[in-house]
Amino acid sequence: MADRFAGPASLSVLIDALKRLPGVGAKSAQRMAYHLLQHDPSGARTLAQALGDAVDRLRHCARCNTFTEAEVCETCLNPRRDPTQLCVVETPADQNMIEASHSYQGLYFVLMGRLSPLEGVGPREIGFDRLVERATDGVVKEVILATNFTTEGETTAHYLGELLRARGIGVTRLARGVPAGSELEYVDAGTIAWALMDRRAS
Amino acid sequence: MADRFAGPASLSVLIDALKRLPGVGAKSAQRMAYHLLQHDPSGARTLAQALGDAVDRLRHCARCNTFTEAEVCETCLNPRRDPTQLCVVETPADQNMIEASHSYQGLYFVLMGRLSPLEGVGPREIGFDRLVERATDGVVKEVILATNFTTEGETTAHYLGELLRARGIGVTRLARGVPAGSELEYVDAGTIAWALMDRRAS
Repeated sequence: MADRFAGPASLSVLIDALKRLPGVGAKSAQRMAYHLLQHDPSGARTLAQALGDAVDRLRHCARCNTFTEAEVCETCLNPRRDPTQLCVVETPADQNMIEASHSYQGLYFVLMGRLSPLEGVGPREIGFDRLVERATDGVVKEVILATNFTTEGETTAHYLGELLRARGIGVTRLARGVPAGSELEYVDAGTIAWALMDRRAS
Repeated sequence: MADRFAGPASLSVLIDALKRLPGVGAKSAQRMAYHLLQHDPSGARTLAQALGDAVDRLRHCARCNTFTEAEVCETCLNPRRDPTQLCVVETPADQNMIEASHSYQGLYFVLMGRLSPLEGVGPREIGFDRLVERATDGVVKEVILATNFTTEGETTAHYLGELLRARGIGVTRLARGVPAGSELEYVDAGTIAWALMDRRAS
């Protein structure tokens, strides 16, 4: 590679380590390393400390599987949340977005992934057993599938739907349709087709 | 902000620390944190270690100003390099690219920045004194200005040229022109104008 780095060992070790971050290639890793060393060494130390602390302290919530420092996360412990609703999301980032909508008061289950046969991620790797166990606690009445509307997210939702319905649990899926504030002219045809199929009485 | 993160402390501290990396915003920082914690905790530990080591061990070469673990870097100590030529670059990444061209055998001086009046970066912040001192060691005969061909890089080259010529040092600048392998139809007009101005006998 033309831009292969040859320099002091601790610098190339740092660049290699930065390349393990998702979305960071050789060029970005170099730029990050130079930036930290030249302009923000205290940022480098802060990041080193934060990485160590996070890996040491964080684990998965025993109930919803999200990251937490305690045995059970704050959301699961919140008595004001509705325990009859369980929203299944792929990642904590998705959970944050649903929280930001201020339109959901139930609990969550975070898959920390999605079915992806091509990458060798099957039901076992995602731990669907734990979700089924959680959903069949006798309190949950409705599971809302909020996986992404990608091929993999849809596959995951379909699979989970079958699994949970077979155990007599009510299963719903986030509505598909035209996004808020959008003009039909600029919405893609697939979305329009969905919105037509799922049209509702008004 | 809609995607503001609210979660365990060590997770939000990590996300904030990742945001200090150049080019990393709130969304990318979140994605990086989740990725490391879920799929690559050993990568997180490796990165933490590498950051600490790099900040502890690296300093600036006493001669060329690049990053090195020793007092003077390997390039400056290499007896096979031509000490009469000094190539001035903005960053170690630029130095790597010139090395990758296998067409330069002289030494370097790495500015670790460029003049940028708007950002408050003047000749003093970049340490032009050190460069002048280095270039006037009696051995250097030619200084090749290889700063970027951006407005700031050009300004830096112009300023340095005046400074060094006033001290009787030969100063050259990288050639401007049409890039290797390109078709004129797809080269921008400014580059064509340069290539015409700097045309040479063939």
